[in-house]
Amino acid sequence: MYRLGDIARMLEGELYGAADAEVKGLAALHEAGPAELSFVAEEKYVDDAKVSKAMALVVSKDFPEISKPLIRVLHPRLAWAKLLAAFAPPKEVPVGVHETAVIGEDVVLGHNVSIQAYAFIKARSRIGNNAVIYPGVYIGADVRIGDNTVIHANAVIQDRVQVGKNCIIHPGVVLGTDGFGFVTTANGHQKVEHIGTVIIEDDVEIGANTTIDRATTGVTLVARGTKIDNLVQVGHNSKIGPQCLITGLCGIAGSSVLEGRNTMGGQSGLAGHLTLGEGTVVAARGLVAKDTPPHSFVSGFPARPHKENMRIIAAEQRLPTLLKEFAQLKKELAQMQEREQDMRMRLLEMERRQERTARERKEDDM
Amino acid sequence: MYRLGDIARMLEGELYGAADAEVKGLAALHEAGPAELSFVAEEKYVDDAKVSKAMALVVSKDFPEISKPLIRVLHPRLAWAKLLAAFAPPKEVPVGVHETAVIGEDVVLGHNVSIQAYAFIKARSRIGNNAVIYPGVYIGADVRIGDNTVIHANAVIQDRVQVGKNCIIHPGVVLGTDGFGFVTTANGHQKVEHIGTVIIEDDVEIGANTTIDRATTGVTLVARGTKIDNLVQVGHNSKIGPQCLITGLCGIAGSSVLEGRNTMGGQSGLAGHLTLGEGTVVAARGLVAKDTPPHSFVSGFPARPHKENMRIIAAEQRLPTLLKEFAQLKKELAQMQEREQDMRMRLLEMERRQERTARERKEDDM
Amino acid sequence: MYRLGDIARMLEGELYGAADAEVKGLAALHEAGPAELSFVAEEKYVDDAKVSKAMALVVSKDFPEISKPLIRVLHPRLAWAKLLAAFAPPKEVPVGVHETAVIGEDVVLGHNVSIQAYAFIKARSRIGNNAVIYPGVYIGADVRIGDNTVIHANAVIQDRVQVGKNCIIHPGVVLGTDGFGFVTTANGHQKVEHIGTVIIEDDVEIGANTTIDRATTGVTLVARGTKIDNLVQVGHNSKIGPQCLITGLCGIAGSSVLEGRNTMGGQSGLAGHLTLGEGTVVAARGLVAKDTPPHSFVSGFPARPHKENMRIIAAEQRLPTLLKEFAQLKKELAQMQEREQDMRMRLLEMERRQERTARERKEDDM
Repeated sequence: MYRLGDIARMLEGELYGAADAEVKGLAALHEAGPAELSFVAEEKYVDDAKVSKAMALVVSKDFPEISKPLIRVLHPRLAWAKLLAAFAPPKEVPVGVHETAVIGEDVVLGHNVSIQAYAFIKARSRIGNNAVIYPGVYIGADVRIGDNTVIHANAVIQDRVQVGKNCIIHPGVVLGTDGFGFVTTANGHQKVEHIGTVIIEDDVEIGANTTIDRATTGVTLVARGTKIDNLVQVGHNSKIGPQCLITGLCGIAGSSVLEGRNTMGGQSGLAGHLTLGEGTVVAARGLVAKDTPPHSFVSGFPARPHKENMRIIAAEQRLPTLLKEFAQLKKELAQMQEREQDMRMRLLEMERRQERTARERKEDDM
Repeated sequence: MYRLGDIARMLEGELYGAADAEVKGLAALHEAGPAELSFVAEEKYVDDAKVSKAMALVVSKDFPEISKPLIRVLHPRLAWAKLLAAFAPPKEVPVGVHETAVIGEDVVLGHNVSIQAYAFIKARSRIGNNAVIYPGVYIGADVRIGDNTVIHANAVIQDRVQVGKNCIIHPGVVLGTDGFGFVTTANGHQKVEHIGTVIIEDDVEIGANTTIDRATTGVTLVARGTKIDNLVQVGHNSKIGPQCLITGLCGIAGSSVLEGRNTMGGQSGLAGHLTLGEGTVVAARGLVAKDTPPHSFVSGFPARPHKENMRIIAAEQRLPTLLKEFAQLKKELAQMQEREQDMRMRLLEMERRQERTARERKEDDM
Repeated sequence: MYRLGDIARMLEGELYGAADAEVKGLAALHEAGPAELSFVAEEKYVDDAKVSKAMALVVSKDFPEISKPLIRVLHPRLAWAKLLAAFAPPKEVPVGVHETAVIGEDVVLGHNVSIQAYAFIKARSRIGNNAVIYPGVYIGADVRIGDNTVIHANAVIQDRVQVGKNCIIHPGVVLGTDGFGFVTTANGHQKVEHIGTVIIEDDVEIGANTTIDRATTGVTLVARGTKIDNLVQVGHNSKIGPQCLITGLCGIAGSSVLEGRNTMGGQSGLAGHLTLGEGTVVAARGLVAKDTPPHSFVSGFPARPHKENMRIIAAEQRLPTLLKEFAQLKKELAQMQEREQDMRMRLLEMERRQERTARERKEDDM
């Protein structure tokens, strides 16, 4: 049980309100009840903050005063993350190897591991200290799982794959299937064996049912600190990271390079053999079809610089009207050309007459 | 074994044909053989009906007469669904708890449950009456599974998730993984613990390998009667339903609201923090980037009102031609401007001459 | 351990270099070290070949000579595939039925099968000779698995599904879930039972976490030699193949027909009840919304003939400029119309004057 004073101390924040008020839980601003603490990330939500039923709010140092207890902190989002960790229900991880787990020959288990029911670990794999292997996980031969890494239920890690320290592999993830590579002949598509592997570096999180293919030769790499959401496909021989954020349902074709600190929005994609320059962001559903320079922001199908794409989208909106107006313009121009023709004839006629007149006058004068 | 007469009675339909004809099975109109019954949903398929080899057809009350036995019913699609259920092969569900299932402390099992081989249920979870838990299913701690709900093989239901009554959770589904939320700092992306949960209400069906993330705080909700197809991603804190249809490979970003009776076509998506008004339909591949009013029909990338999108697509088709014609028009206009310039000069010249002439004539007259 | 001479013989190639040089492994051109063999598929990579650190290269018969040992072969890609198979680490497949596998009544197992830990096979299913069933696989009742077929960890094959010979089913694949079909009534979406099945013919490969729905009645078919990548959704009653390549995250709606030898790029999709003509290729992210003729190449959203789509995309790029220029043109035209009006007035005035002058002159003459 936490009191507001405890929480302010934990967050190294300043408390404006009663220190002994009891905090029953955490909740979003519009969902919080009178026993729950909430937070406001940005000043623009001040009106929502005022009407929130939350007992108190975690806010930034310069957030306006409102008639509610506040805990002022340097970085509200980080503070909130800290609180969420503090309030998280315990995970109940049984230490040891469950009697139903199948452990292959020469498997090496670290200290304090949790190998749960019906987990399967094949020969010569090494599981790091404090690692947690949930029920139904399949781990192939010669796999390495780093210290403190958690592999959730029914994930599949195939032969020779390496997963670093402090990683979280969510349920149903499949690491190390063959890449999608064939040689097409008159007799059909001949399979290309994929004899490379997958390396997941430290501090990586991989979302549920995401699939990462092994390299043809060499390595498919997910570098340090990269976070991948659910249902993402990573093709063989790609190199991703460090510190990327790959959102749900993204498709990363074979041999892609994400140089690091990239963000890919939901359902976005990368055609094969391309490089996303460092820091490049792909908006949701963007389909990148050529290399992008570092720190660019691209969107659309095909992906273009975001501002350009926004201009194109705005222009498309006006396209049906444009076509009508264009047809009208063409008509007007044609009419003008007719009138011009008429004027030209009349002008010519007048010139002739004028000349004639001039001639006549000259003759008259003669 | 069914006879046509039995089927007509079952469907409360009128039989036009021999009641004792034996029906061996059901089949689609163009696939049915002479011992199989088929159905026609709409009158426009009357020609297909005539050439179908089916022994008899289930049709609407006002379907034209054809030279084939007919069972006339009020609602052919519903009648067909009823028949499919009647002809469905039995599911062979073993009642009881398989000896290999691992059941945690204080788990409460309802009457008549089927907990199959290698199922895993963690502490304090409650499984409703007649619920079926297939092999390899993982159920975390404090989970609730409602009466008559079926959880298919290798699905994963994580801690504290609640699934209602009469639900079908297909194989490989993952309910309750952490949402994709991080606070990015100089030291990388800090994980945001997700301490909320997922609630699946009654009569919901969730397709194979679909993933639904738990809320940061509070609830990710799939409301009553909603049906979700395979490989769909539902982000944390979304509220979906009641009575939605979400087709395969859809991506629903965090904090989305589907107000109810929504349809999302295949591969469509919702950018985060948006509301689909009640009854709004998103066409296949549509990417909704702003709130939609109730009962709208949107399509495209970004999604727009469908008619507008159709107009834009039609216009795009004409864009290359438009550009050519536009270039031509510009050229013509430039030429006209030249000719105009020429005419203007000639006109000016004539005016001067005319004036001169007039002046001269005046002088002559003087 | 292989020597260059062995490899040249294995590939039926001509060796230009020392036959006894020892090959430690295979690697991509830019990754190969001095003990590794690499290959070059096309002559355009000759400069990369020159700077590669590889000890030797497998190349085509007419590849330019470079200062490096070469093995010249007829078809470098096929030769490379052969080498990859030769260098692939052994798979370590235990023959026999693991003691923890659960085998139902009247299951028939072929010779030499590998049924691994925690595999589950329901009544009356038949597993072909040399088939491999990895840990955690669920196989329903009345299933057929052909000779030499491999079902990887945690895949789910539901009742009555048939898988042919020499197939590879990757981890997490789900074959035979109910199609996404409902009859919507005032009381909600009524489930349509799917009493058909799925048939996977010989030589098919299906990628991790891909889902294929069973037919309402009849069959969802994946025909001979078709290869499907990860996270693909195949709707009920579709017919795919033979010899198709379906890349990751594709969505194939119900009742689609792929006539054979089709390629679908990553994240592409097919709206329902459509036919892709034989040999038709859909580029990545293409969304096919109407039937395509055989051997077409379509791309875009909606998919159009690729060249047309490329022209439209190029034209879109110019759309914002077009709109500006169009506005300018309209303005110019309006100005011209004003000037034209002015000229017309002046012309009229002159004509009148000329007439007047002429009249006056006539009068003068009279």
